[in-house]
Amino acid sequence: MRIDIISVVPELLESPLGHSIMKRAQTKGLLEVYVHHLRQWAVNEYGQVDDYQYGGGAGMVMMCEPLAKAIDQLSADRKYDQVIYMTPDGERFEQKTANRLSLSENLLIICGHYKGIDQRIRDHYVTMELSIGDYVLSGGELAAAVIVDAIGRLIPGVLNDETSALTDSFQDDLLAPPVYTRPADFRGWKVPEILLSGDLKKVEEWRYEQALQRTRERRPDLQEE
Amino acid sequence: MRIDIISVVPELLESPLGHSIMKRAQTKGLLEVYVHHLRQWAVNEYGQVDDYQYGGGAGMVMMCEPLAKAIDQLSADRKYDQVIYMTPDGERFEQKTANRLSLSENLLIICGHYKGIDQRIRDHYVTMELSIGDYVLSGGELAAAVIVDAIGRLIPGVLNDETSALTDSFQDDLLAPPVYTRPADFRGWKVPEILLSGDLKKVEEWRYEQALQRTRERRPDLQEE
Repeated sequence: MRIDIISVVPELLESPLGHSIMKRAQTKGLLEVYVHHLRQWAVNEYGQVDDYQYGGGAGMVMMCEPLAKAIDQLSADRKYDQVIYMTPDGERFEQKTANRLSLSENLLIICGHYKGIDQRIRDHYVTMELSIGDYVLSGGELAAAVIVDAIGRLIPGVLNDETSALTDSFQDDLLAPPVYTRPADFRGWKVPEILLSGDLKKVEEWRYEQALQRTRERRPDLQEE
Repeated sequence: MRIDIISVVPELLESPLGHSIMKRAQTKGLLEVYVHHLRQWAVNEYGQVDDYQYGGGAGMVMMCEPLAKAIDQLSADRKYDQVIYMTPDGERFEQKTANRLSLSENLLIICGHYKGIDQRIRDHYVTMELSIGDYVLSGGELAAAVIVDAIGRLIPGVLNDETSALTDSFQDDLLAPPVYTRPADFRGWKVPEILLSGDLKKVEEWRYEQALQRTRERRPDLQEE
C-alpha cells in the first residue's frame, strides 16, 4: 500500500512514521508513506499557502490553489482509492474504517492546519472526510499518523504474529480482556488463579466472559449495534 | 502545566512534541513535557520490561514492577492530578475531557505497547483510563501525543489568538462552519456572496446557520445531549 500525505508541518510526522511498527512495515516493503510539503505548490516565491478567511475572524485558511495543484500532480501518477481530509467534523474513524481502508492500494491524506482548508477543495477534491475523535488538535498531522498506524498494522505481515490484530479490542465488538504477566504475586496483588491453571479451554472461557463483562460495563453501545 | 509520559518507544514522541504549537508552548514555559523511557526501571540488566502473558496467547504484556517503580519515583517529587493510561477500552477522550484536563498542574501518562500493561497496575495505580477513539493503534504513544496536543493548545497563551480555540468545533456542541479564502473565484468555484459583503452581522448569522446545518447533517447526536 502507498500513502501520500500533504502537510504544512511535515516534520511533525517524522518520528511517528520512522520508528517501531510503522518503520518495520516500510522496511519490509509492505507500506510506502510519502510526506509532501505543501509549500512546493505555494502561490508565490514567499511560500504562501494560506490566507485570511473571507468574512473576517481569527485563524488562517489553507488556500485552494496549492492544494489543487498538489492533488492534481500526485493523482497524475496513480489512482487514489480515496482523497482523505482529516477534520473534526468528518465521519468518525473506527476500527471498521481501518479494516476497510487497509485493503486500499493508494491513499492520499490532506492534513489541515490553522482554521482548516478552503471549503471548495472539500467540495471538489476530497472523497472522504475523517475524524479520529470529538476533540480539536492543532493540525491534522497527528490524526493522519493515527490512521496510518491503525491501517498500517492491519496489512498482512506487518505485525509479527498475524493473529495478534484479530484479538484486539473492537474486532468482535468486544473490548479485550485483562492481561497479566509475571510475577503471579506482586506486592500481594495476585493473578487470577484460572490463568495459572494450564487449562486452555477454561482460560478461553474466562477471557470471553471478562471481555463480555468489560464491554457491558464500559461500552454497552458496542453490543447494541 | 507539567506532563510526564512513560513509554517503551519514547523516540516515537520526539517530533509531535518538538515542533509547531507544542514546541511553542514549551518554549514559552507554559507546558513542560518529559518523556521517560520505561527501561530505566527494567527488572534486569537486559532491560526487560515485558513478559509473556499468563494463560498463553500472542503478544507481550508490560510488567508490574517497572511501571510501579516508575510511577512511585515520579510521584515522590510531585502530586499528579491524574495517572492516565491510554487504552482503547478507556473512557472516550472528548473536547470536554481536554477542557477539564487543561486545568491540571501535573499529569502522568502511561503508554501501553504490545498487548497492554498488567491489569494490576490499572487496578492499583491508574486513576483515569482514556481512549482517543474506537480503533487499535500499535502503541499508546500516538494517543498520548494526541491528548497532549488537545490539552496543550487550550492552555492560555499557547495559541496566538486566544479566541481561536473558542470557535473550534465541539466547544458549543456545534461543528465549525465552512471557511474560505482568496481567490473569490477559483476555477469557477465561488465563495458565498455573503462572506464578501462586509456585513459582519450577516456573516455571523450565516456562520451560525451553517454550523447548525452541518451539525444536524453530520452529527445530530451532538445536539441531542
